[in-house]
Amino acid sequence: MEQLLARLEEYRQMVDAALDDFLPRADMTPATLHEAMRYATLGGGKRIRPALVLMTGELFGVANADAMPAACAIEIVHTYSLVHDDLPAMDNDDLRRGRLTCHKAYDEATAILVGDALLTLAFGLLASRYPPPAAVDLIQIVARAAGHAGMISGQYMDLEGERRRLDDRDTIELMYALKTSELFVAACRVGARLGGAKAEATAKVAAFGKDVGLLFQTVDDILDETASAEQLGKNVRQDAAAGKSTIIMMRGVVGAQDQAAVYAKRADDNLADFGAAAATLLLLPQYLLTRQK
Amino acid sequence: MEQLLARLEEYRQMVDAALDDFLPRADMTPATLHEAMRYATLGGGKRIRPALVLMTGELFGVANADAMPAACAIEIVHTYSLVHDDLPAMDNDDLRRGRLTCHKAYDEATAILVGDALLTLAFGLLASRYPPPAAVDLIQIVARAAGHAGMISGQYMDLEGERRRLDDRDTIELMYALKTSELFVAACRVGARLGGAKAEATAKVAAFGKDVGLLFQTVDDILDETASAEQLGKNVRQDAAAGKSTIIMMRGVVGAQDQAAVYAKRADDNLADFGAAAATLLLLPQYLLTRQK
Repeated sequence: MEQLLARLEEYRQMVDAALDDFLPRADMTPATLHEAMRYATLGGGKRIRPALVLMTGELFGVANADAMPAACAIEIVHTYSLVHDDLPAMDNDDLRRGRLTCHKAYDEATAILVGDALLTLAFGLLASRYPPPAAVDLIQIVARAAGHAGMISGQYMDLEGERRRLDDRDTIELMYALKTSELFVAACRVGARLGGAKAEATAKVAAFGKDVGLLFQTVDDILDETASAEQLGKNVRQDAAAGKSTIIMMRGVVGAQDQAAVYAKRADDNLADFGAAAATLLLLPQYLLTRQK
Repeated sequence: MEQLLARLEEYRQMVDAALDDFLPRADMTPATLHEAMRYATLGGGKRIRPALVLMTGELFGVANADAMPAACAIEIVHTYSLVHDDLPAMDNDDLRRGRLTCHKAYDEATAILVGDALLTLAFGLLASRYPPPAAVDLIQIVARAAGHAGMISGQYMDLEGERRRLDDRDTIELMYALKTSELFVAACRVGARLGGAKAEATAKVAAFGKDVGLLFQTVDDILDETASAEQLGKNVRQDAAAGKSTIIMMRGVVGAQDQAAVYAKRADDNLADFGAAAATLLLLPQYLLTRQK
Protein backbone atom coordinates (compact mmCIF):
# COMPACT_ATOMS: atom_id res chain seq x y z
CA MET A 1 0.00 0.00 0.00
CA GLU A 2 2.87 2.38 0.79
CA GLN A 3 4.15 1.66 -2.69
CA LEU A 4 0.78 2.72 -4.16
CA LEU A 5 0.61 5.84 -2.00
CA ALA A 6 4.08 6.87 -3.17
CA ARG A 7 3.07 6.21 -6.77
CA LEU A 8 -0.17 8.17 -6.44
CA GLU A 9 1.81 11.08 -5.00
CA GLU A 10 4.19 10.96 -7.97
CA TYR A 11 1.25 10.91 -10.40
CA ARG A 12 -0.38 13.76 -8.53
CA GLN A 13 2.69 15.95 -8.88
CA MET A 14 3.11 15.07 -12.57
CA VAL A 15 -0.57 15.76 -13.26
CA ASP A 16 -0.49 19.08 -11.39
CA ALA A 17 2.55 20.18 -13.41
CA ALA A 18 0.93 19.12 -16.68
CA LEU A 19 -2.38 20.83 -15.83
CA ASP A 20 -0.46 24.00 -15.01
CA ASP A 21 1.04 23.76 -18.47
CA PHE A 22 -2.17 22.92 -20.39
CA LEU A 23 -4.32 25.59 -18.73
CA PRO A 24 -4.29 29.09 -20.21
CA ARG A 25 -1.90 31.55 -18.55
CA ALA A 26 -3.38 33.65 -15.74
CA ASP A 27 -2.32 36.85 -17.52
CA MET A 28 -4.60 36.27 -20.50
CA THR A 29 -7.56 38.65 -20.77
CA PRO A 30 -10.14 38.71 -19.37
CA ALA A 31 -7.84 38.16 -16.38
CA THR A 32 -10.50 37.09 -13.88
CA LEU A 33 -11.92 34.39 -16.17
CA HIS A 34 -8.49 32.85 -16.68
CA GLU A 35 -7.51 33.15 -13.04
CA ALA A 36 -10.76 31.44 -12.09
CA MET A 37 -10.14 28.58 -14.54
CA ARG A 38 -6.77 27.99 -12.85
CA TYR A 39 -8.20 28.44 -9.35
CA ALA A 40 -10.83 25.77 -9.99
CA THR A 41 -8.41 23.27 -11.52
CA LEU A 42 -5.14 23.71 -9.62
CA GLY A 43 -4.28 23.59 -5.93
CA GLY A 44 -5.98 20.49 -4.60
CA GLY A 45 -7.60 17.29 -5.71
CA LYS A 46 -6.49 13.69 -5.33
CA ARG A 47 -6.13 13.30 -9.12
CA ILE A 48 -7.45 9.72 -8.96
CA ARG A 49 -9.00 9.81 -12.44
CA PRO A 50 -5.86 10.95 -14.28
CA ALA A 51 -3.83 8.45 -12.21
CA LEU A 52 -6.18 5.77 -13.52
CA VAL A 53 -5.45 6.89 -17.10
CA LEU A 54 -1.71 6.71 -16.43
CA MET A 55 -1.88 3.35 -14.65
CA THR A 56 -4.12 1.75 -17.27
CA GLY A 57 -1.83 3.19 -19.93
CA GLU A 58 1.17 1.55 -18.23
CA LEU A 59 -0.64 -1.78 -18.20
CA PHE A 60 -0.71 -1.57 -22.00
CA GLY A 61 2.79 -0.17 -22.40
CA VAL A 62 1.99 3.55 -22.73
CA ALA A 63 4.59 5.99 -21.35
CA ASN A 64 3.20 8.44 -18.80
CA ALA A 65 4.22 11.37 -20.99
CA ASP A 66 2.11 10.05 -23.86
CA ALA A 67 -0.93 9.47 -21.66
CA MET A 68 -0.62 12.80 -19.85
CA PRO A 69 -2.69 15.08 -22.15
CA ALA A 70 -5.57 12.58 -22.03
CA ALA A 71 -5.17 12.16 -18.27
CA CYS A 72 -5.40 15.94 -17.89
CA ALA A 73 -8.40 16.14 -20.22
CA ILE A 74 -10.24 13.66 -17.98
CA GLU A 75 -9.32 15.66 -14.86
CA ILE A 76 -10.43 18.90 -16.56
CA VAL A 77 -13.81 17.32 -17.39
CA HIS A 78 -14.08 16.21 -13.77
CA THR A 79 -13.24 19.73 -12.58
CA TYR A 80 -15.84 21.35 -14.83
CA SER A 81 -18.44 18.96 -13.42
CA LEU A 82 -17.48 19.92 -9.85
CA VAL A 83 -17.64 23.65 -10.62
CA HIS A 84 -21.14 23.32 -12.06
CA ASP A 85 -22.34 20.83 -9.41
CA ASP A 86 -21.29 23.18 -6.62
CA LEU A 87 -23.49 26.00 -7.97
CA PRO A 88 -26.39 27.20 -5.79
CA ALA A 89 -28.97 25.77 -8.22
CA MET A 90 -27.27 22.37 -7.98
CA ASP A 91 -25.60 21.13 -4.75
CA ASN A 92 -24.94 24.64 -3.38
CA ASP A 93 -21.55 23.84 -1.84
CA ASP A 94 -19.27 26.55 -0.45
CA LEU A 95 -16.17 24.49 0.18
CA ARG A 96 -14.22 22.19 -2.12
CA ARG A 97 -10.71 20.80 -1.81
CA GLY A 98 -10.20 22.88 1.34
CA ARG A 99 -11.01 26.19 -0.36
CA LEU A 100 -13.99 28.25 -1.39
CA THR A 101 -15.83 26.83 -4.37
CA CYS A 102 -15.42 28.73 -7.64
CA HIS A 103 -18.73 30.60 -7.40
CA LYS A 104 -17.92 31.67 -3.81
CA ALA A 105 -14.36 32.75 -4.60
CA TYR A 106 -15.62 34.57 -7.72
CA ASP A 107 -19.33 34.63 -8.57
CA GLU A 108 -21.96 32.43 -10.13
CA ALA A 109 -21.66 33.81 -13.66
CA THR A 110 -17.90 33.29 -13.58
CA ALA A 111 -18.32 29.73 -12.31
CA ILE A 112 -20.78 28.88 -15.09
CA LEU A 113 -18.38 30.24 -17.72
CA VAL A 114 -15.35 28.58 -16.08
CA GLY A 115 -17.09 25.20 -16.27
CA ASP A 116 -18.03 25.80 -19.91
CA ALA A 117 -14.48 26.88 -20.74
CA LEU A 118 -12.93 23.85 -19.04
CA LEU A 119 -15.19 21.39 -20.85
CA THR A 120 -14.37 23.03 -24.18
CA LEU A 121 -10.65 23.04 -23.33
CA ALA A 122 -10.68 19.30 -22.61
CA PHE A 123 -11.96 18.48 -26.09
CA GLY A 124 -9.53 20.94 -27.66
CA LEU A 125 -6.68 19.28 -25.78
CA LEU A 126 -7.60 15.80 -26.99
CA ALA A 127 -8.01 17.04 -30.58
CA SER A 128 -4.64 18.81 -30.63
CA ARG A 129 -2.35 16.45 -28.72
CA TYR A 130 -2.93 13.12 -30.44
CA PRO A 131 -2.82 11.84 -34.02
CA PRO A 132 -6.31 12.10 -35.57
CA PRO A 133 -7.40 8.43 -35.34
CA ALA A 134 -6.52 8.27 -31.62
CA ALA A 135 -7.86 11.78 -30.94
CA VAL A 136 -11.24 10.95 -32.45
CA ASP A 137 -11.54 7.74 -30.42
CA LEU A 138 -10.58 9.53 -27.20
CA ILE A 139 -13.07 12.33 -27.88
CA GLN A 140 -15.83 9.80 -28.49
CA ILE A 141 -14.98 7.95 -25.28
CA VAL A 142 -15.05 11.17 -23.24
CA ALA A 143 -18.11 12.66 -24.96
CA ARG A 144 -20.15 9.51 -24.35
CA ALA A 145 -19.04 9.15 -20.74
CA ALA A 146 -19.53 12.82 -19.86
CA GLY A 147 -22.65 13.41 -21.95
CA HIS A 148 -26.42 13.20 -21.64
CA ALA A 149 -26.44 9.40 -21.48
CA GLY A 150 -23.56 9.27 -18.99
CA MET A 151 -22.36 11.59 -16.24
CA ILE A 152 -25.01 14.23 -16.89
CA SER A 153 -27.81 11.68 -16.55
CA GLY A 154 -26.24 10.67 -13.25
CA GLN A 155 -26.21 14.27 -12.05
CA TYR A 156 -29.79 14.64 -13.11
CA MET A 157 -30.81 11.50 -11.20
CA ASP A 158 -28.91 12.81 -8.18
CA LEU A 159 -30.99 16.01 -8.28
CA GLU A 160 -34.22 14.09 -8.84
CA GLY A 161 -33.28 11.96 -5.84
CA GLU A 162 -33.52 15.03 -3.61
CA ARG A 163 -37.12 15.66 -4.62
CA ARG A 164 -38.32 12.09 -4.58
CA ARG A 165 -36.51 9.43 -2.53
CA LEU A 166 -34.98 6.74 -4.78
CA ASP A 167 -35.82 3.67 -2.77
CA ASP A 168 -34.32 0.71 -4.48
CA ARG A 169 -30.73 -0.42 -4.60
CA ASP A 170 -30.59 -0.85 -8.36
CA THR A 171 -31.64 2.74 -9.00
CA ILE A 172 -29.07 4.11 -6.56
CA GLU A 173 -26.36 1.92 -8.10
CA LEU A 174 -27.37 3.10 -11.57
CA MET A 175 -27.10 6.72 -10.39
CA TYR A 176 -23.59 6.06 -9.00
CA ALA A 177 -22.60 4.24 -12.17
CA LEU A 178 -23.68 7.21 -14.26
CA LYS A 179 -22.57 10.15 -12.16
CA THR A 180 -19.23 8.66 -11.07
CA SER A 181 -18.29 5.39 -12.79
CA GLU A 182 -18.76 6.74 -16.31
CA LEU A 183 -15.70 8.98 -16.01
CA PHE A 184 -13.68 6.25 -14.25
CA VAL A 185 -14.57 3.87 -17.08
CA ALA A 186 -13.59 6.53 -19.60
CA ALA A 187 -10.22 6.93 -17.83
CA CYS A 188 -9.60 3.18 -18.20
CA ARG A 189 -10.80 3.09 -21.81
CA VAL A 190 -8.56 6.02 -22.68
CA GLY A 191 -5.51 4.24 -21.23
CA ALA A 192 -6.46 1.08 -23.11
CA ARG A 193 -7.02 2.91 -26.40
CA LEU A 194 -3.66 4.64 -26.19
CA GLY A 195 -2.02 1.24 -25.63
CA GLY A 196 -3.88 -0.34 -28.53
CA ALA A 197 -5.58 -2.85 -26.21
CA LYS A 198 -7.81 -5.50 -27.76
CA ALA A 199 -11.58 -5.47 -27.15
CA GLU A 200 -11.48 -8.20 -24.49
CA ALA A 201 -8.76 -6.52 -22.43
CA THR A 202 -10.49 -3.15 -22.83
CA ALA A 203 -13.73 -4.65 -21.53
CA LYS A 204 -11.91 -5.93 -18.45
CA VAL A 205 -10.31 -2.63 -17.52
CA ALA A 206 -13.61 -0.88 -18.25
CA ALA A 207 -15.37 -3.25 -15.83
CA PHE A 208 -12.61 -2.52 -13.31
CA GLY A 209 -13.22 1.21 -13.80
CA LYS A 210 -16.95 0.78 -13.26
CA ASP A 211 -16.47 -1.03 -9.95
CA VAL A 212 -13.79 1.44 -8.84
CA GLY A 213 -16.23 4.27 -9.56
CA LEU A 214 -19.03 2.61 -7.58
CA LEU A 215 -16.57 2.02 -4.75
CA PHE A 216 -15.32 5.60 -4.88
CA GLN A 217 -18.83 7.06 -4.74
CA THR A 218 -19.97 4.73 -1.96
CA VAL A 219 -16.96 5.71 0.17
CA ASP A 220 -17.58 9.37 -0.69
CA ASP A 221 -21.08 9.06 0.70
CA ILE A 222 -19.83 7.22 3.80
CA LEU A 223 -17.25 9.97 4.45
CA ASP A 224 -19.91 12.66 3.96
CA GLU A 225 -21.71 11.01 6.88
CA THR A 226 -18.77 10.06 9.11
CA ALA A 227 -15.81 12.39 8.45
CA SER A 228 -15.06 15.97 9.43
CA ALA A 229 -14.97 18.98 7.13
CA GLU A 230 -11.25 19.39 7.98
CA GLN A 231 -10.52 15.85 6.81
CA LEU A 232 -12.40 16.23 3.53
CA GLY A 233 -11.80 19.88 2.69
CA LYS A 234 -15.50 20.23 1.99
CA ASN A 235 -18.64 20.59 4.05
CA VAL A 236 -20.03 17.33 5.44
CA ARG A 237 -23.51 15.96 6.21
CA GLN A 238 -24.56 17.67 2.98
CA ASP A 239 -26.37 14.66 1.53
CA ALA A 240 -28.60 14.24 4.57
CA ALA A 241 -29.24 17.99 4.74
CA ALA A 242 -30.31 18.06 1.10
CA GLY A 243 -32.40 14.91 1.53
CA LYS A 244 -30.37 13.18 -1.17
CA SER A 245 -30.99 9.56 -2.03
CA THR A 246 -27.77 7.70 -1.20
CA ILE A 247 -26.73 4.23 -0.22
CA ILE A 248 -26.43 5.54 3.37
CA MET A 249 -30.14 6.36 3.46
CA MET A 250 -30.89 2.87 2.13
CA ARG A 251 -28.51 0.70 4.10
CA GLY A 252 -26.79 2.81 6.78
CA VAL A 253 -23.05 3.32 7.15
CA VAL A 254 -22.30 -0.31 7.99
CA GLY A 255 -24.35 -1.61 5.09
CA ALA A 256 -22.60 0.86 2.78
CA GLN A 257 -19.20 -0.29 4.04
CA ASP A 258 -20.14 -3.88 3.29
CA GLN A 259 -21.20 -2.88 -0.20
CA ALA A 260 -17.97 -0.93 -0.73
CA ALA A 261 -15.99 -4.07 0.14
CA VAL A 262 -18.01 -6.01 -2.40
CA TYR A 263 -17.20 -3.44 -5.08
CA ALA A 264 -13.49 -3.52 -4.13
CA LYS A 265 -13.36 -7.30 -4.43
CA ARG A 266 -15.28 -7.27 -7.71
CA ALA A 267 -12.99 -4.56 -9.08
CA ASP A 268 -9.90 -6.69 -8.48
CA ASP A 269 -11.51 -9.81 -9.93
CA ASN A 270 -11.78 -8.07 -13.29
CA LEU A 271 -8.01 -7.87 -13.52
CA ALA A 272 -7.21 -11.51 -12.65
CA ASP A 273 -5.99 -12.30 -16.17
CA PHE A 274 -3.40 -9.52 -16.23
CA GLY A 275 -1.22 -11.11 -13.53
CA ALA A 276 1.72 -9.19 -12.07
CA ALA A 277 1.43 -6.39 -14.63
CA ALA A 278 -1.69 -5.16 -12.83
CA ALA A 279 -0.12 -5.30 -9.35
CA THR A 280 -0.23 -1.55 -8.69
CA LEU A 281 -3.67 -1.13 -10.20
CA LEU A 282 -4.94 -3.90 -7.92
CA LEU A 283 -3.92 -1.87 -4.89
CA LEU A 284 -6.20 1.01 -5.87
CA PRO A 285 -9.51 -0.50 -4.68
CA GLN A 286 -7.93 -1.37 -1.31
CA TYR A 287 -6.71 2.21 -0.96
CA LEU A 288 -10.08 3.68 -1.97
CA LEU A 289 -11.86 1.39 0.49
CA THR A 290 -9.79 2.63 3.43
CA ARG A 291 -9.26 6.27 2.47
CA GLN A 292 -10.12 8.79 5.17
CA LYS A 293 -10.33 11.85 2.92
CA MET B 1 -33.27 39.06 -51.58
CA GLU B 2 -36.40 36.92 -52.05
CA GLN B 3 -34.13 34.25 -53.44
CA LEU B 4 -32.02 34.40 -50.26
CA LEU B 5 -35.08 34.33 -48.00
CA ALA B 6 -36.40 31.25 -49.79
CA ARG B 7 -32.99 29.62 -49.48
CA LEU B 8 -32.69 30.47 -45.78
CA GLU B 9 -36.12 28.96 -45.21
CA GLU B 10 -35.02 25.77 -46.98
CA TYR B 11 -31.87 25.60 -44.88
CA ARG B 12 -33.89 26.22 -41.73
CA GLN B 13 -36.19 23.29 -42.47
CA MET B 14 -33.27 21.00 -43.33
CA VAL B 15 -31.39 22.02 -40.20
CA ASP B 16 -34.45 21.53 -37.98
CA ALA B 17 -34.98 18.05 -39.40
CA ALA B 18 -31.32 17.15 -38.92
CA LEU B 19 -31.24 18.52 -35.37
CA ASP B 20 -34.32 16.48 -34.57
CA ASP B 21 -32.39 13.45 -35.78
CA PHE B 22 -29.08 14.19 -34.01
CA LEU B 23 -30.63 15.03 -30.64
CA PRO B 24 -31.34 12.18 -28.23
CA ARG B 25 -34.89 10.84 -28.27
CA ALA B 26 -37.29 12.43 -25.78
CA ASP B 27 -38.11 9.01 -24.32
CA MET B 28 -34.58 8.39 -23.06
CA THR B 29 -34.21 8.48 -19.26
CA PRO B 30 -34.03 10.73 -17.38
CA ALA B 31 -37.00 11.90 -19.46
CA THR B 32 -37.03 15.51 -18.30
CA LEU B 33 -33.34 16.06 -19.11
CA HIS B 34 -33.81 14.77 -22.64
CA GLU B 35 -37.07 16.63 -23.17
CA ALA B 36 -35.36 19.82 -22.03
CA MET B 37 -32.44 19.31 -24.42
CA ARG B 38 -34.93 19.07 -27.27
CA TYR B 39 -37.04 21.96 -25.97
CA ALA B 40 -33.99 24.25 -25.90
CA THR B 41 -32.77 23.27 -29.35
CA LEU B 42 -35.89 22.70 -31.43
CA GLY B 43 -38.91 24.86 -32.18
CA GLY B 44 -37.49 28.23 -33.07
CA GLY B 45 -34.32 29.96 -34.11
CA LYS B 46 -33.31 31.54 -37.41
CA ARG B 47 -30.52 28.96 -37.89
CA ILE B 48 -28.21 31.58 -39.41
CA ARG B 49 -25.00 29.93 -38.19
CA PRO B 50 -25.73 26.49 -39.67
CA ALA B 51 -26.91 28.19 -42.88
CA LEU B 52 -23.51 29.85 -43.00
CA VAL B 53 -21.82 26.44 -42.72
CA LEU B 54 -23.98 25.11 -45.56
CA MET B 55 -23.49 28.17 -47.78
CA THR B 56 -19.73 28.31 -47.23
CA GLY B 57 -19.60 24.59 -47.86
CA GLU B 58 -21.43 25.10 -51.17
CA LEU B 59 -18.91 27.76 -52.16
CA PHE B 60 -16.22 25.06 -51.92
CA GLY B 61 -18.29 22.29 -53.47
CA VAL B 62 -19.57 20.54 -50.35
CA ALA B 63 -23.01 18.91 -50.57
CA ASN B 64 -25.44 20.08 -47.91
CA ALA B 65 -25.83 16.54 -46.60
CA ASP B 66 -22.08 16.32 -45.95
CA ALA B 67 -21.95 19.67 -44.17
CA MET B 68 -25.09 19.04 -42.12
CA PRO B 69 -23.61 17.31 -39.03
CA ALA B 70 -21.08 20.14 -38.66
CA ALA B 71 -23.78 22.75 -39.28
CA CYS B 72 -25.87 21.18 -36.52
CA ALA B 73 -22.86 20.97 -34.18
CA ILE B 74 -22.37 24.73 -34.58
CA GLU B 75 -26.07 25.38 -33.90
CA ILE B 76 -25.95 23.10 -30.86
CA VAL B 77 -22.96 25.04 -29.49
CA HIS B 78 -24.90 28.26 -30.09
CA THR B 79 -27.94 26.82 -28.29
CA TYR B 80 -25.90 25.72 -25.27
CA SER B 81 -24.51 29.26 -25.03
CA LEU B 82 -28.04 30.74 -25.12
CA VAL B 83 -29.28 28.35 -22.42
CA HIS B 84 -26.43 29.30 -20.09
CA ASP B 85 -26.51 33.02 -20.96
CA ASP B 86 -30.21 33.20 -20.15
CA LEU B 87 -29.63 31.91 -16.59
CA PRO B 88 -30.46 34.27 -13.69
CA ALA B 89 -26.77 34.62 -12.78
CA MET B 90 -26.01 35.71 -16.35
CA ASP B 91 -28.51 37.72 -18.44
CA ASN B 92 -31.58 36.52 -16.53
CA ASP B 93 -33.88 36.28 -19.54
CA ASP B 94 -37.31 34.66 -19.34
CA LEU B 95 -38.17 34.62 -23.01
CA ARG B 96 -36.28 33.24 -26.00
CA ARG B 97 -37.45 32.38 -29.50
CA GLY B 98 -41.00 33.24 -28.46
CA ARG B 99 -41.09 30.74 -25.59
CA LEU B 100 -39.99 30.47 -21.98
CA THR B 101 -36.23 30.09 -21.61
CA CYS B 102 -35.01 26.65 -20.56
CA HIS B 103 -34.59 27.52 -16.87
CA LYS B 104 -38.10 29.02 -16.75
CA ALA B 105 -39.74 26.13 -18.59
CA TYR B 106 -37.82 23.65 -16.39
CA ASP B 107 -35.49 24.91 -13.65
CA GLU B 108 -32.01 26.31 -13.24
CA ALA B 109 -30.29 23.02 -12.47
CA THR B 110 -31.86 21.44 -15.56
CA ALA B 111 -30.78 24.38 -17.71
CA ILE B 112 -27.19 24.15 -16.48
CA LEU B 113 -27.11 20.41 -17.27
CA VAL B 114 -28.87 20.88 -20.63
CA GLY B 115 -26.21 23.38 -21.68
CA ASP B 116 -23.44 21.04 -20.57
CA ALA B 117 -25.05 18.11 -22.37
CA LEU B 118 -25.48 20.07 -25.61
CA LEU B 119 -21.86 21.25 -25.64
CA THR B 120 -20.66 17.69 -25.08
CA LEU B 121 -23.03 16.39 -27.76
CA ALA B 122 -21.65 18.85 -30.32
CA PHE B 123 -18.11 17.53 -29.93
CA GLY B 124 -19.34 13.93 -29.97
CA LEU B 125 -21.22 14.65 -33.18
CA LEU B 126 -18.15 16.08 -34.91
CA ALA B 127 -15.99 13.17 -33.73
CA SER B 128 -18.43 10.52 -34.94
CA ARG B 129 -19.71 11.91 -38.25
CA TYR B 130 -16.49 12.75 -40.11
CA PRO B 131 -13.31 10.86 -41.02
CA PRO B 132 -10.68 11.43 -38.30
CA PRO B 133 -8.49 14.04 -40.04
CA ALA B 134 -11.51 16.25 -40.83
CA ALA B 135 -13.14 15.57 -37.47
CA VAL B 136 -10.04 16.67 -35.57
CA ASP B 137 -9.75 19.88 -37.58
CA LEU B 138 -13.44 20.69 -37.07
CA ILE B 139 -13.19 20.03 -33.34
CA GLN B 140 -10.18 22.32 -33.07
CA ILE B 141 -11.97 25.06 -35.00
CA VAL B 142 -15.04 24.83 -32.77
CA ALA B 143 -13.11 24.41 -29.49
CA ARG B 144 -10.99 27.50 -30.19
CA ALA B 145 -13.96 29.62 -31.28
CA ALA B 146 -16.22 28.57 -28.41
CA GLY B 147 -13.53 28.40 -25.74
CA HIS B 148 -11.89 30.61 -23.13
CA ALA B 149 -10.07 32.72 -25.74
CA GLY B 150 -13.16 33.05 -27.94
CA MET B 151 -16.89 33.14 -27.25
CA ILE B 152 -16.51 32.65 -23.49
CA SER B 153 -14.14 35.64 -23.24
CA GLY B 154 -16.75 37.65 -25.09
CA GLN B 155 -19.47 36.58 -22.66
CA TYR B 156 -17.21 37.46 -19.80
CA MET B 157 -16.52 40.93 -21.23
CA ASP B 158 -20.26 41.36 -21.73
CA LEU B 159 -20.84 40.68 -18.02
CA GLU B 160 -17.94 42.93 -17.01
CA GLY B 161 -19.47 45.63 -19.19
CA GLU B 162 -22.52 45.67 -16.91
CA ARG B 163 -20.41 46.44 -13.87
CA ARG B 164 -18.07 48.94 -15.47
CA ARG B 165 -19.04 50.82 -18.62
CA LEU B 166 -16.81 49.91 -21.57
CA ASP B 167 -16.32 53.29 -23.09
CA ASP B 168 -14.28 52.94 -26.22
CA ARG B 169 -15.32 51.62 -29.59
CA ASP B 170 -12.45 49.18 -29.95
CA THR B 171 -13.30 47.41 -26.70
CA ILE B 172 -16.96 47.07 -27.65
CA GLU B 173 -16.02 45.80 -31.11
CA LEU B 174 -13.62 43.29 -29.51
CA MET B 175 -16.43 42.10 -27.23
CA TYR B 176 -18.76 41.63 -30.24
CA ALA B 177 -16.01 39.88 -32.18
CA LEU B 178 -15.48 37.44 -29.32
CA LYS B 179 -19.02 36.81 -28.14
CA THR B 180 -20.62 36.65 -31.58
CA SER B 181 -18.18 36.68 -34.49
CA GLU B 182 -16.07 33.79 -33.20
CA LEU B 183 -18.86 31.30 -33.87
CA PHE B 184 -19.72 32.90 -37.24
CA VAL B 185 -16.04 32.64 -38.21
CA ALA B 186 -16.01 29.02 -37.04
CA ALA B 187 -19.07 28.34 -39.23
CA CYS B 188 -17.22 29.70 -42.27
CA ARG B 189 -13.98 27.88 -41.42
CA VAL B 190 -15.89 24.62 -41.01
CA GLY B 191 -17.47 25.00 -44.45
CA ALA B 192 -14.06 25.83 -45.92
CA ARG B 193 -12.33 22.89 -44.21
CA LEU B 194 -14.95 20.44 -45.47
CA GLY B 195 -14.40 21.76 -49.00
CA GLY B 196 -10.63 21.52 -48.70
CA ALA B 197 -10.25 25.28 -49.24
CA LYS B 198 -6.73 26.72 -49.43
CA ALA B 199 -5.43 29.02 -46.68
CA GLU B 200 -6.03 32.21 -48.65
CA ALA B 201 -9.65 31.40 -49.50
CA THR B 202 -10.24 30.24 -45.93
CA ALA B 203 -8.91 33.56 -44.62
CA LYS B 204 -11.33 35.43 -46.87
CA VAL B 205 -14.44 33.55 -45.77
CA ALA B 206 -13.24 33.81 -42.15
CA ALA B 207 -12.97 37.59 -42.54
CA PHE B 208 -16.47 37.56 -44.06
CA GLY B 209 -17.69 35.58 -41.04
CA LYS B 210 -16.12 38.05 -38.65
CA ASP B 211 -17.84 41.04 -40.28
CA VAL B 212 -21.15 39.19 -40.53
CA GLY B 213 -20.90 38.44 -36.80
CA LEU B 214 -20.19 42.09 -35.95
CA LEU B 215 -23.11 43.10 -38.15
CA PHE B 216 -25.40 40.51 -36.59
CA GLN B 217 -24.59 41.62 -33.04
CA THR B 218 -24.90 45.31 -33.86
CA VAL B 219 -28.35 44.77 -35.37
CA ASP B 220 -29.27 42.59 -32.39
CA ASP B 221 -28.48 45.48 -30.08
CA ILE B 222 -30.38 47.93 -32.30
CA LEU B 223 -33.44 45.64 -32.27
CA ASP B 224 -33.21 45.25 -28.49
CA GLU B 225 -33.64 49.04 -28.36
CA THR B 226 -36.16 49.59 -31.17
CA ALA B 227 -38.26 46.43 -31.69
CA SER B 228 -41.12 44.86 -29.77
CA ALA B 229 -41.01 41.66 -27.75
CA GLU B 230 -43.58 40.16 -30.16
CA GLN B 231 -41.28 40.84 -33.11
CA LEU B 232 -38.22 39.32 -31.46
CA GLY B 233 -39.73 36.53 -29.38
CA LYS B 234 -37.66 37.73 -26.42
CA ASN B 235 -37.86 40.55 -23.95
CA VAL B 236 -36.57 43.90 -25.20
CA ARG B 237 -34.80 46.91 -23.65
CA GLN B 238 -32.85 44.32 -21.65
CA ASP B 239 -29.43 45.82 -22.39
CA ALA B 240 -30.36 49.25 -21.11
CA ALA B 241 -32.09 47.74 -18.06
CA ALA B 242 -28.98 45.73 -17.20
CA GLY B 243 -26.72 48.71 -17.85
CA LYS B 244 -24.86 46.75 -20.51
CA SER B 245 -22.10 48.35 -22.54
CA THR B 246 -23.28 48.26 -26.16
CA ILE B 247 -22.72 50.22 -29.32
CA ILE B 248 -26.12 51.84 -28.66
CA MET B 249 -24.85 53.34 -25.42
CA MET B 250 -21.79 54.63 -27.26
CA ARG B 251 -23.25 55.92 -30.50
CA GLY B 252 -27.04 55.79 -30.30
CA VAL B 253 -29.33 53.89 -32.67
CA VAL B 254 -28.45 55.98 -35.73
CA GLY B 255 -24.73 55.69 -35.11
CA ALA B 256 -25.14 51.95 -34.66
CA GLN B 257 -27.08 51.70 -37.94
CA ASP B 258 -24.26 53.52 -39.72
CA GLN B 259 -21.75 51.14 -38.22
CA ALA B 260 -23.86 48.12 -39.21
CA ALA B 261 -23.85 49.36 -42.82
CA VAL B 262 -20.05 49.63 -42.66
CA TYR B 263 -19.81 46.03 -41.45
CA ALA B 264 -22.19 44.86 -44.21
CA LYS B 265 -20.12 46.55 -46.90
CA ARG B 266 -16.87 45.24 -45.46
CA ALA B 267 -18.32 41.72 -45.23
CA ASP B 268 -19.12 41.68 -48.94
CA ASP B 269 -15.75 43.13 -49.91
CA ASN B 270 -14.05 40.03 -48.49
CA LEU B 271 -15.77 37.86 -51.08
CA ALA B 272 -14.93 39.96 -54.16
CA ASP B 273 -12.55 37.32 -55.55
CA PHE B 274 -15.13 34.53 -55.52
CA GLY B 275 -17.31 36.11 -58.21
CA ALA B 276 -20.72 34.65 -59.03
CA ALA B 277 -20.15 31.55 -56.88
CA ALA B 278 -20.61 33.75 -53.81
CA ALA B 279 -23.79 35.41 -55.05
CA THR B 280 -26.12 33.97 -52.40
CA LEU B 281 -23.60 34.46 -49.60
CA LEU B 282 -23.27 38.11 -50.63
CA LEU B 283 -26.98 38.64 -49.99
CA LEU B 284 -26.65 37.60 -46.36
CA PRO B 285 -25.20 40.88 -45.01
CA GLN B 286 -27.94 42.85 -46.76
CA TYR B 287 -30.57 40.61 -45.19
CA LEU B 288 -29.01 40.86 -41.74
CA LEU B 289 -28.79 44.64 -42.05
CA THR B 290 -32.50 44.97 -42.71
CA ARG B 291 -33.90 42.16 -40.58
CA GLN B 292 -36.73 43.13 -38.23
CA LYS B 293 -36.49 40.08 -35.97
